[in-house]
Amino acid sequence: MTADVNKDRLWNSLMTLAEIGATPRGGVRRIALTDEDKRARDLFCDWARDAGCDIRVDTIGNIFARRPGRNPDALPVATGSHIDSQPLGGKFDGAFGVMAGLEVIRALNDAGIETEAPIEVVDWTDEEGARFAAGCIGSGVYSGHRDLAAALVLEDAEGVTVGAALERIGYAGPAPLGEPGFGAYFEAHIEQGPILEAEGLTVGAVLGAQGQRCFVVTVEGVDGHAGTLPMAKRQDSFVGTAKMTVALTELAETYNPAAVITIGHVRVVPNSRNTVPGKTVFTIDSRHPDSETLERMEADMIRICGEIAKSSGLSVAFETVTRAEPIVFNTGCVDAVREACRQRQIRFMDIHSGAGHDACKIAAVSPAGMIFVPCIDGISHNELEDARAEDLAVGTQVLLDSMLAYAK
Amino acid sequence: MTADVNKDRLWNSLMTLAEIGATPRGGVRRIALTDEDKRARDLFCDWARDAGCDIRVDTIGNIFARRPGRNPDALPVATGSHIDSQPLGGKFDGAFGVMAGLEVIRALNDAGIETEAPIEVVDWTDEEGARFAAGCIGSGVYSGHRDLAAALVLEDAEGVTVGAALERIGYAGPAPLGEPGFGAYFEAHIEQGPILEAEGLTVGAVLGAQGQRCFVVTVEGVDGHAGTLPMAKRQDSFVGTAKMTVALTELAETYNPAAVITIGHVRVVPNSRNTVPGKTVFTIDSRHPDSETLERMEADMIRICGEIAKSSGLSVAFETVTRAEPIVFNTGCVDAVREACRQRQIRFMDIHSGAGHDACKIAAVSPAGMIFVPCIDGISHNELEDARAEDLAVGTQVLLDSMLAYAK
Repeated sequence: MTADVNKDRLWNSLMTLAEIGATPRGGVRRIALTDEDKRARDLFCDWARDAGCDIRVDTIGNIFARRPGRNPDALPVATGSHIDSQPLGGKFDGAFGVMAGLEVIRALNDAGIETEAPIEVVDWTDEEGARFAAGCIGSGVYSGHRDLAAALVLEDAEGVTVGAALERIGYAGPAPLGEPGFGAYFEAHIEQGPILEAEGLTVGAVLGAQGQRCFVVTVEGVDGHAGTLPMAKRQDSFVGTAKMTVALTELAETYNPAAVITIGHVRVVPNSRNTVPGKTVFTIDSRHPDSETLERMEADMIRICGEIAKSSGLSVAFETVTRAEPIVFNTGCVDAVREACRQRQIRFMDIHSGAGHDACKIAAVSPAGMIFVPCIDGISHNELEDARAEDLAVGTQVLLDSMLAYAK
Repeated sequence: MTADVNKDRLWNSLMTLAEIGATPRGGVRRIALTDEDKRARDLFCDWARDAGCDIRVDTIGNIFARRPGRNPDALPVATGSHIDSQPLGGKFDGAFGVMAGLEVIRALNDAGIETEAPIEVVDWTDEEGARFAAGCIGSGVYSGHRDLAAALVLEDAEGVTVGAALERIGYAGPAPLGEPGFGAYFEAHIEQGPILEAEGLTVGAVLGAQGQRCFVVTVEGVDGHAGTLPMAKRQDSFVGTAKMTVALTELAETYNPAAVITIGHVRVVPNSRNTVPGKTVFTIDSRHPDSETLERMEADMIRICGEIAKSSGLSVAFETVTRAEPIVFNTGCVDAVREACRQRQIRFMDIHSGAGHDACKIAAVSPAGMIFVPCIDGISHNELEDARAEDLAVGTQVLLDSMLAYAK
């Protein structure tokens, strides 16, 4: 029993969806719970109904499109992702996962296949976190990571709450939270990194997601006059920060290849051309798929920065701002993805996700797995984000086959 | 023939002047051509008239207070500095030089000394550059470094011009520019650095001022996702900047002790915690008293940054924003300061100025020299700026003796 996905139909759906919020440089601006998000949600619902699905919307605005199974009591086998985007995002991040789910249903319809368990395609509310300063709101509330009441009162920069924005666009639904539960959940997504492309592979069987620890580091020395203060008497917070940055980068390389350390945000005080800067504040984003390694990296980072501060006459303080444990996906789901690749003779690799996804939240309440496909040059969160229609179709085929293995 | 300065009178004058624009933390906010500057100017003029001086104000608002000499045709021997301050400045930067000049006149009066050449005390307009985005406006126009008409139309952040501000406070004077010329010009100033204090000395005979070259350096790589982009594939502009900062600091130390290199301003783009930064812009402020060394330092800096960029997959571009040649003070003036110290058995050292001063402008049109006295912990451009009354008096005595050697 099988069904073949339709590459062109998938691509055309993605391109039609991408017209909603299209930007001049080929990207998408479809921020959560805006008019663009509403139009995209409406289109998804129309298409899903046309494909024979029932639609339900829960109290945090997640949309569930169900293709019935023979056994209405069986837990559905689900897929999905999100159709909101970054302020200047691409056409594929999230949208691919939702359109792939729709293509699974259409392909099953074409093949006349009736499954035992229902098939469910989900559009999760606000994965990107670009508007309300929190990401994965819909999947986080669904899975119990986040409290509904607290989520509904999150405000955007204009003071509009999630609750008010959901009401405004007509997606504050009646369906109770956390229902239906899933027999399994698979999410197809572009990799958002360069690894598959570099390896010349079309599919990544995602083992899990890196854990993440973020710190705000404050380095303090003493302000000084750039002309009158001799080098030997300086307590230059930015020179200290530079030494720390070089050492932390070298540290990440010793934990390679899975470890990443990024200094992405830097604030120099007073940030004046002719003043030796007395204070520098920077962020460290560190990630690794293994919890214990992440712990060792943290200890190393604190030790290294402390040593550099001490030898430079500076003080240094770490504040932890994010501490997310690694996610390990369900072995059965990962194996289903691998097996689907083998059956279709698709070359694949095991891979870790460097980014967070709705599936990482769902993994707490359901067997879950992910399927990665390459994106051009690894570019994402960018209008230039791109992917090949062929790769997207292959990923969707693996999604369909993996879901069928569970839904029967 | 000599006269002794009065330590307490000098200190009391400084403290009275510091009441104008006094800040809660013991500093001074007396921005050029504001009401506070006007009140300070009025007070200086009153005190100078009380001491028997004639006052003239030139077209850029410089105030010249003259104590007549026996020979009205002799070029005056001058001193001075500025009484404007940084927005949160100290009680001594500039103010000391003007009050020291006043004390010279008062001490000569006390001793009943008539000099051959007139003695002139000058308050130069807007040395700090805190309001009109240009410093040394008065001394720069006087000495021909800056065009009068162009200076008068410089605007502050509210669009008020130098000319309008001078008119408003009544200091747009009638006296022609560049008159009188000086037989010699000496300026007393706090060091604004830590060297004299560290050496345990009270006077620095200033040999000249460092040359300065400032650059805006743009390092460009490629933005990337902090989670998905492996370390080995990154082109991280901030890591490149960090390596350059460490290397440039080491370079300055090889040219020590007179060389200083400061990275004071840093802008990371996009400056987002979870994005590998594709672009970093930073400033280099490099200074050295020798022109040829400054040239070699520049070549070294460009080479070092280029090598780091190349090995890191980055581009780097240098834009020169300041190129000020070193100032060498008149040998006769420097010798007069040294000799005054020797006569009074004051321990002194030769020193270079790391900061710019009015004397650096005047040196182009007159024999000029400077006298430095220590300031506590080398702190300046800060409300906490402080100096010892004894040191200020010793510096003023050296000023008086040096001027007398020229004025006879």
